[in-house]
Amino acid sequence: MKFVINRNLFLENLNNVMRAISSRTTIPILTGIKLDLSEEELVLTGSDTDISIQIKLAASEDLQISTTGSIVLPARFFSEIVKKLPGKDFSFEVTENFQTLIKSENAEFTINGLDANNYPRLPEVQNDDSFTLDSKVISELINQTTFAVAIQESRPILTGVHFAFAAGKLKAVATDSHRLAQREIELTDGPTGEMNLIIPGKSLTELSRIIGETSTKISVKSSENQILFVIGNISFYSRLLEGHYPDTDRLLPETSTTDVTFDIATLSSSLDRASLLTHESRNNVVKLSINPLNNTVVIKGNSPEIGNVEEEIAAKAMSGDELEISFNPDYLRDALRASITDQVLMKFTQPLRPFTVVPNQADLKFVQLITPVRTF
Amino acid sequence: MKFVINRNLFLENLNNVMRAISSRTTIPILTGIKLDLSEEELVLTGSDTDISIQIKLAASEDLQISTTGSIVLPARFFSEIVKKLPGKDFSFEVTENFQTLIKSENAEFTINGLDANNYPRLPEVQNDDSFTLDSKVISELINQTTFAVAIQESRPILTGVHFAFAAGKLKAVATDSHRLAQREIELTDGPTGEMNLIIPGKSLTELSRIIGETSTKISVKSSENQILFVIGNISFYSRLLEGHYPDTDRLLPETSTTDVTFDIATLSSSLDRASLLTHESRNNVVKLSINPLNNTVVIKGNSPEIGNVEEEIAAKAMSGDELEISFNPDYLRDALRASITDQVLMKFTQPLRPFTVVPNQADLKFVQLITPVRTF
Repeated sequence: MKFVINRNLFLENLNNVMRAISSRTTIPILTGIKLDLSEEELVLTGSDTDISIQIKLAASEDLQISTTGSIVLPARFFSEIVKKLPGKDFSFEVTENFQTLIKSENAEFTINGLDANNYPRLPEVQNDDSFTLDSKVISELINQTTFAVAIQESRPILTGVHFAFAAGKLKAVATDSHRLAQREIELTDGPTGEMNLIIPGKSLTELSRIIGETSTKISVKSSENQILFVIGNISFYSRLLEGHYPDTDRLLPETSTTDVTFDIATLSSSLDRASLLTHESRNNVVKLSINPLNNTVVIKGNSPEIGNVEEEIAAKAMSGDELEISFNPDYLRDALRASITDQVLMKFTQPLRPFTVVPNQADLKFVQLITPVRTF
Repeated sequence: MKFVINRNLFLENLNNVMRAISSRTTIPILTGIKLDLSEEELVLTGSDTDISIQIKLAASEDLQISTTGSIVLPARFFSEIVKKLPGKDFSFEVTENFQTLIKSENAEFTINGLDANNYPRLPEVQNDDSFTLDSKVISELINQTTFAVAIQESRPILTGVHFAFAAGKLKAVATDSHRLAQREIELTDGPTGEMNLIIPGKSLTELSRIIGETSTKISVKSSENQILFVIGNISFYSRLLEGHYPDTDRLLPETSTTDVTFDIATLSSSLDRASLLTHESRNNVVKLSINPLNNTVVIKGNSPEIGNVEEEIAAKAMSGDELEISFNPDYLRDALRASITDQVLMKFTQPLRPFTVVPNQADLKFVQLITPVRTF
């Protein structure tokens, strides 16, 4: 196995494969990266069993292939080494006993590799039907929902985002049972029929990082427990969560009795100040007092040890009944960060009923639901 | 106690006082910052007993003093709060039971303060003789030596830098007994007679951060176990290490048998590559093989688990005997980072005798000494 490659080209792709590789794995060979060299291409593979990433680099002026073969190298070191090589190119050659020689200008590394035959097989996605999605759309949906998935595994299904495809539509929902984020969009592409996919939040976060700012068509295909996203020369595999996602539609209140519109910037900075205190308290809770008659909204935060904070927040508009409601400020902060407008509309019913945060544009179907906290 | 102050002015000074405040202290009140308000000025004080910092802010348009008094506030919170206040100014008022009211625009914080009478007294430096030093000079000396102090406290005196003043001269030395950094400069100011000060490395690091890029005259005065640096409106107190600093002059070899000159950039990047491997090995050691006859220098690093690296380093000049020498690459890396020229001269005698790294300019009195490691 021998090739010469442009260092920057290699590094860029190596960094993407590294996203699938964890140093904390029960399968030691998975701390490695697999390189498979055929006469046509170099294939890089990394996996933590939940996520697998495979990148294909075709032979070119920047990748000159001499002899084919396969090897597994310790991923973190290999990547550190390539980063610090002195030259524009480097040569890569596997000699005896999986010893790998990496040369660039005067520097010559010999790295102990592992037999690629011992590397686990990639999951297979046996399905000939694939559909396409716009990378910007998938990336937007991920950023607007994934933060709300459950971290704790007490209900594993909630650690994923539920993607529900129907004719010309896609609805993504995530909830950790304290708050929920739901975004619906119209699709010009997507699968032909209805389809339900529950994708782990962690996988989506990595997928979103790989997509980055790229604007392209992503090809998607799925089997019962695996999904494959193909983004240019990158194949991104994730396991799917099996089971039925709870019906979240019934959680969303249809009416409200108190409505307030805020500038996100104004509300965020008030929340930040209140959180300074509440983060020091055992129960991380702020209290919002809304008085449409006086046109005032007051936020209060308290920590028995440190002190308290009180602030009037300028609302853009408000209507309905007077209300006092207490909730975890971090949930609202997450909701505001994910928002796609400059203003949001908060809609309340009762002090102990969940409230919603929606964009101040009726055509944007993006609902965030937050459950209040009982403080008496 | 009541005043109104410009937030940015306050923050800038608060950040400097915070350098002396540690959250890990055995004296709880020292996690706080003390504020003393007289009719003329506001004095901020922070201390971890080793270092104390006091900053004086005179009454001005930006600091309007209403009523005098003193208070201690939890430093980290107070600083977080001030950072996040909405307005350009804020008002500060101590009410009953050490409760402190901080107002800025609509935001109103009430913080539980502590009785300033319980705050320890600052160390006193009883000495009427003070001298001045240029801030750039002191800052340069700190950066060129402090990295070499001992971290472990087995010989406490080595955790400090030894400043030896003599007529028109200052010599600073630090060593952890494995390597040594010594810088000598000529002084136009400084004390009139001879003076020896051993200042803890940690204090010097903070002092250097406070000085930053400032170019000013620093007033210095010291007593038996305390030193005070006055930089503008900042008083920086540090304890001094007591005892006799070892005589390090006798450690510096007077002759050499192998000399090599390197570009620092070239040598540093080769060292970085070799360290990748040696950092994974139990004994972090690189081997340098110098052959003036063939005009080659080869560096080798090795980790039994990962592999090895070998590289020829282009030297600018070399002379003397052939030599193989092994040493900790981190010591040389530190020495190169502290260097003040683009090239260094490395001077060796025998494989097991310390070698020196000096600037390639004879007029710069800066010697770094590194002890090699026996590898056979």
